[in-house]
Amino acid sequence: MDWHQIFATRMDRMKASEIRELLKLLDQPDIISFAGGIPDPALFPTGAFQDALADALSPANASAALQYSVSEGYAPLRDWIVTQMEALDIPCTRENVLITSGSQQALDYLGKLLLSPGDTALVGWPTYLGALGAFNAYEPHYDRLAPRGNRSAADYAEAAHANGGRVKFAYASVDFANPTGETLDRASREGILTLADELDIAVIEDSAYQVLRYDGTPIPPMLALEIARKGSIENCRTLYCGSFSKSLAPGLRVGWICGASEVIGRLVLMKQAADLHSSTINQMAINTVARSVFADHTAGLRRTYAARRDAMLAALETHMPDGVTWTRPEGGMFVWITLPKHMDGADLLRTSLESQRVAFVPGQAFFADRSGANTLRLSFSLADDAKIEEGVRRLAAAIRAF
Amino acid sequence: MDWHQIFATRMDRMKASEIRELLKLLDQPDIISFAGGIPDPALFPTGAFQDALADALSPANASAALQYSVSEGYAPLRDWIVTQMEALDIPCTRENVLITSGSQQALDYLGKLLLSPGDTALVGWPTYLGALGAFNAYEPHYDRLAPRGNRSAADYAEAAHANGGRVKFAYASVDFANPTGETLDRASREGILTLADELDIAVIEDSAYQVLRYDGTPIPPMLALEIARKGSIENCRTLYCGSFSKSLAPGLRVGWICGASEVIGRLVLMKQAADLHSSTINQMAINTVARSVFADHTAGLRRTYAARRDAMLAALETHMPDGVTWTRPEGGMFVWITLPKHMDGADLLRTSLESQRVAFVPGQAFFADRSGANTLRLSFSLADDAKIEEGVRRLAAAIRAF
Repeated sequence: MDWHQIFATRMDRMKASEIRELLKLLDQPDIISFAGGIPDPALFPTGAFQDALADALSPANASAALQYSVSEGYAPLRDWIVTQMEALDIPCTRENVLITSGSQQALDYLGKLLLSPGDTALVGWPTYLGALGAFNAYEPHYDRLAPRGNRSAADYAEAAHANGGRVKFAYASVDFANPTGETLDRASREGILTLADELDIAVIEDSAYQVLRYDGTPIPPMLALEIARKGSIENCRTLYCGSFSKSLAPGLRVGWICGASEVIGRLVLMKQAADLHSSTINQMAINTVARSVFADHTAGLRRTYAARRDAMLAALETHMPDGVTWTRPEGGMFVWITLPKHMDGADLLRTSLESQRVAFVPGQAFFADRSGANTLRLSFSLADDAKIEEGVRRLAAAIRAF
Repeated sequence: MDWHQIFATRMDRMKASEIRELLKLLDQPDIISFAGGIPDPALFPTGAFQDALADALSPANASAALQYSVSEGYAPLRDWIVTQMEALDIPCTRENVLITSGSQQALDYLGKLLLSPGDTALVGWPTYLGALGAFNAYEPHYDRLAPRGNRSAADYAEAAHANGGRVKFAYASVDFANPTGETLDRASREGILTLADELDIAVIEDSAYQVLRYDGTPIPPMLALEIARKGSIENCRTLYCGSFSKSLAPGLRVGWICGASEVIGRLVLMKQAADLHSSTINQMAINTVARSVFADHTAGLRRTYAARRDAMLAALETHMPDGVTWTRPEGGMFVWITLPKHMDGADLLRTSLESQRVAFVPGQAFFADRSGANTLRLSFSLADDAKIEEGVRRLAAAIRAF
């Protein structure tokens, strides 16, 4: 059977990543990997989850924990998220919160909500690879979101029209973004909101790393800034995507979208049709763990990851040759390296693996236009200080020899 | 903000169901409800899940259970599913199995894989409401799948072409289907396979209720029949959707798709982009519980639900007035009632709730063409014998008074 002749047109956009395939083969112990962007499992609050799951399966709760539940999510967890949103100057109610299976699902649903084939999404150059993957299923064009660029709303609208659709949203990962580690400053956030007002589009605010700030001054979420402008979340176009994957644990797949109740209502219908609801027992466990250990636990994460970030920045300072530059993130898990213009990150990965046994993610895949060949993403979340020092030393040697 | 002007065109197809909203309000204790199609929570294997989750969070396993995992699913669970498929005469390997977040997600993904706007899906009249909901997001037309009808493949192809697309798949729930409780006989299954060969389309086989057979002779899945024709799953167009929601517990959201590895590979990419993977810890727990209690547990379910089905069929025999007919399911959770032609099930629900305090699902929503107004779905899964007898008596009184 020739499946290609019956696949939907969107399947042309879903290709296996060569790099991902290469990095899959990295389970050898002599390789130092800065490739994964995943939390350190040694830091998971396992005891709290043991207690929470035992409680979810106690006689009082088991019938609910193992049963179907409502598409909008477990009400006590939605209520706890409301308290977190309010602490970020986002006054809202339970009706403004949908529980998703991780914030990756939030991005998929928002693409599905907004994009018809040929529409345009504004994204950073580079941007989160998983956002491009999620949106690709809905066959958009991409245009470059330049928060302080000199393109007007009319320029964007015209380019989208020429591509047969209209601009539907601007997507931005705001704090210590994957892949760059950079944070959008307040003026850039305000700039995106103004552009979105002019274009009459949605704003997707990806806040997956929000709690992992190690220093510097917190900047209000775009949703908070928009509420300050417009008085109520119900008047806002920003849809905030949050996640427990970086703060508690990713394996339970729990995240959320916070936004105007009209949009949340439509997303509830979408979720009902797509997977009925996120795991009931996992939502109950996340709720219990969040209410018992969230503040203390995330404080501990910040201490550990901050030290690893410091170790990586110090090692880069010590070892990197001239002509190599990097970001200095105030949080998150990533440092972004820019190599001299002529160097190709994917080629460097092949030689680094062979000669220096060090891994990272070449940056090109993070660019919707496939530029940025001379960039790399390093993650400091999984390695201890000694491994970070040694890995960066090896990477510098690979760059010198390239 | 006027959200409607930026929603994707697919959102026109996602509407709140009036009936679902009505049934939401049914939490009053004096109402007897045959509306829900959900398992009896008193039958969940809670002890086995307690043990399994404690094991998943033991020191040896916790790091993996709480961490990200691969999009294709937890390998030991995929392997266990392979043994179940082989027992159904479906020889396959792990590469033929994708773990999904319930079989609802399987239907969503298969719609996403195959449907471009304007394509045609063949479905039963009536069919599973959740399948229509999942497929609607991909903007298909529907045509009526009549397993032994007299329409030729050319007729179907022509109708689809006239609607601006082509036929992409036939969808069928094969055993004790939701909503009718009916089982496709072997000739009908073979007929669908032949039609699919002629049209060169996929077959989506929904097997959510497969283990809940109470009597009669098991009929091989369409995938088994197709493998018997073609020698290997790799040559087959049937994609089998399974679920643990009816056999173990729905709250963990674990199901699967079994089919040709080429298709599974594409679905893995889709899942990576849509939600990364299904909950790691839930897959581990389902694997442990399935390996320890599956056969005994499902045998117990069959005994209990069979008795409830018998009670409902007996009560229908006793109480229903002339002109009302119903199905006699060999398994599952549903009996399907056909009222005299002039009666409307939705109107009957309103009066039944008011005068008799009995609830059910009017059948019209299960028809893609919105016919079938004179049908009802009753579920016997949640009520004990006395409630079933009393509820059917009340329903018959409501029908008589209508």
